[in-house]
Amino acid sequence: MATVQRARRSTGSRVPAWMLRAGACWLLMLMCSGACLAAQDPLSSWNDGPAKQQIQGFVHKVTTAGSAEFVEPEQRIAVFDNDGTLWAEQPIYFQFFFVIDQLKAQSPQHPEWKTTEPFKSALAGDFKGVAASGEKGIAQLIAATHAGMTTEEFAQRVNQWLATARHPTTHRVLTEMIYQPMRELLHYLRDNGFRTYIVSGGGQDFMRAWAQAVYGIPPEQVIGSEGELKFELRDGKPVLVKEAGIVLIDDHGGKPVGIERFIGRRPILAFGNSDGDQQMLEWTVAGEGARFAGLVHHTDAQREFAYDRQSSVGKLDKALDEAMTKGWTVVDMKKDWKQIFPP
Amino acid sequence: MATVQRARRSTGSRVPAWMLRAGACWLLMLMCSGACLAAQDPLSSWNDGPAKQQIQGFVHKVTTAGSAEFVEPEQRIAVFDNDGTLWAEQPIYFQFFFVIDQLKAQSPQHPEWKTTEPFKSALAGDFKGVAASGEKGIAQLIAATHAGMTTEEFAQRVNQWLATARHPTTHRVLTEMIYQPMRELLHYLRDNGFRTYIVSGGGQDFMRAWAQAVYGIPPEQVIGSEGELKFELRDGKPVLVKEAGIVLIDDHGGKPVGIERFIGRRPILAFGNSDGDQQMLEWTVAGEGARFAGLVHHTDAQREFAYDRQSSVGKLDKALDEAMTKGWTVVDMKKDWKQIFPP
Repeated sequence: MATVQRARRSTGSRVPAWMLRAGACWLLMLMCSGACLAAQDPLSSWNDGPAKQQIQGFVHKVTTAGSAEFVEPEQRIAVFDNDGTLWAEQPIYFQFFFVIDQLKAQSPQHPEWKTTEPFKSALAGDFKGVAASGEKGIAQLIAATHAGMTTEEFAQRVNQWLATARHPTTHRVLTEMIYQPMRELLHYLRDNGFRTYIVSGGGQDFMRAWAQAVYGIPPEQVIGSEGELKFELRDGKPVLVKEAGIVLIDDHGGKPVGIERFIGRRPILAFGNSDGDQQMLEWTVAGEGARFAGLVHHTDAQREFAYDRQSSVGKLDKALDEAMTKGWTVVDMKKDWKQIFPP
Repeated sequence: MATVQRARRSTGSRVPAWMLRAGACWLLMLMCSGACLAAQDPLSSWNDGPAKQQIQGFVHKVTTAGSAEFVEPEQRIAVFDNDGTLWAEQPIYFQFFFVIDQLKAQSPQHPEWKTTEPFKSALAGDFKGVAASGEKGIAQLIAATHAGMTTEEFAQRVNQWLATARHPTTHRVLTEMIYQPMRELLHYLRDNGFRTYIVSGGGQDFMRAWAQAVYGIPPEQVIGSEGELKFELRDGKPVLVKEAGIVLIDDHGGKPVGIERFIGRRPILAFGNSDGDQQMLEWTVAGEGARFAGLVHHTDAQREFAYDRQSSVGKLDKALDEAMTKGWTVVDMKKDWKQIFPP
């Protein structure tokens, strides 16, 4: 404004007042336009680059009425892996911290766990050791920590635990280790008429306990690995009780199976970060019309973790090769994300 | 109008023209109000009686903002059994006609089926005989008629069959044997912010092939009995192949299990017609706040079929007792429904 005032004085009455006012407005607009645009950008935590452009280009073409690639809202299904795609997964899947804490609380009553697998590995936080015990070992851990509990008791226990559990190196509450750019992407898609689903190898009940509060994703849109459930009456009241058996391992080929079983429609957009997501991405892009497949590539050792082909958790090897061959969008966390976690 | 014209003539100019016009309008309104109200009634195929009143009363209280029993739209989940609740189920579940026709087409290649159960009973249309072979027998029928087919091939085959299959006694196309009053109820609930789900013992894939066209219920809201699926590449193209194993028998206690697995929320309204729906109704009403449980009682031998406690298909015995004890709404088809099937 000072500049404008001086201009008025030096030019005397030769410049009309309306022109000066217009000039002042124009200057003010120039000054704040950068900040204003950033505030309006629904993907403001994304740097301008190929990944952001590809996402925006895809959403634009499937939502533009009259476009050859327009997709009706009811078919705008977007699926997201959770561990490593929506929130962090290192040094081990966060649900595994929960299982360890549950085991620790019960271990005084089970001295034999110190020497018996998979309990020995689990109590030592050795995910590789647990994984080596296979489906049978995982079922044993579920039996020890979840079985016999009603679905309501389980959800309550998860939320109690999440309220205090902290990450071993960042010391953050775990639900604050979600990726801010991906949260923006979920909102952006929903604002454009998409329905956003989680399709994760993690436990379905575990994620449903908090996914709505943290991601805005309601329980019926959370698909995960599932254990057996049993209906029974306890004190005359109907309950659903968790059992040890496994119904679905929602990983690798299990992801398209979970999608078909729960949604019965093929997604038009899928995002993952590991070889466990490869089949979900293949299934998505094999449909007709416009499709989008994206991979989050963990390249930022400083702000998060850097890992891919050699990692025991979230290994990204074959899916990365396929992404490069087929032109899937690979998000480079270091280059593409201004910010990793919520402020 | 003729009456009004005469009235004007006899009264000369003493009655102003505006009053005559108002009188004419009033007469016309009186004449058409009955017809207009019927056209506006979203449950016009229901007779005025306790069942209709209970449904309307429930919907009114859960949708009235500020009411003590108001329910947020996202929690307005309504679940419906299919066979015997949304469409007919006599003399046998309609999906069984499909299985028989598939078996018949293949039987020349399988002469052994004439003497081997469950094929012998199935080919003879003997549902009781098939049921006696238990889960193993049903799995054998699925293996023979569905297994190895991709999900897309299966849906296509179901729709091809439905286009020509006719009911053995009414000779109607099967999708015209849906209940008009229940179709109105589905629309009425959706117009009031409910999401309507099918939760049926029938095959999930079988129902999804036509539920959207016939009931307006999208695939992700159709829960049914499920077989195993397998992801594989055929000629480099990803497909989902149906296998013989059974994942869920969505009947009796399996219904609340299916609801929890797929929706993860407890419904506030449930409608069934047989003992297979009893646990779903119990699970629904055991939640807090306003709840609605309804049973369709097949009482109309003339317009449909009359059966309950002794029926081998759609047996309604224990659930009817519980309905009477607990005050669930029992719809008497003969008394409560003006019309059974669509015109």
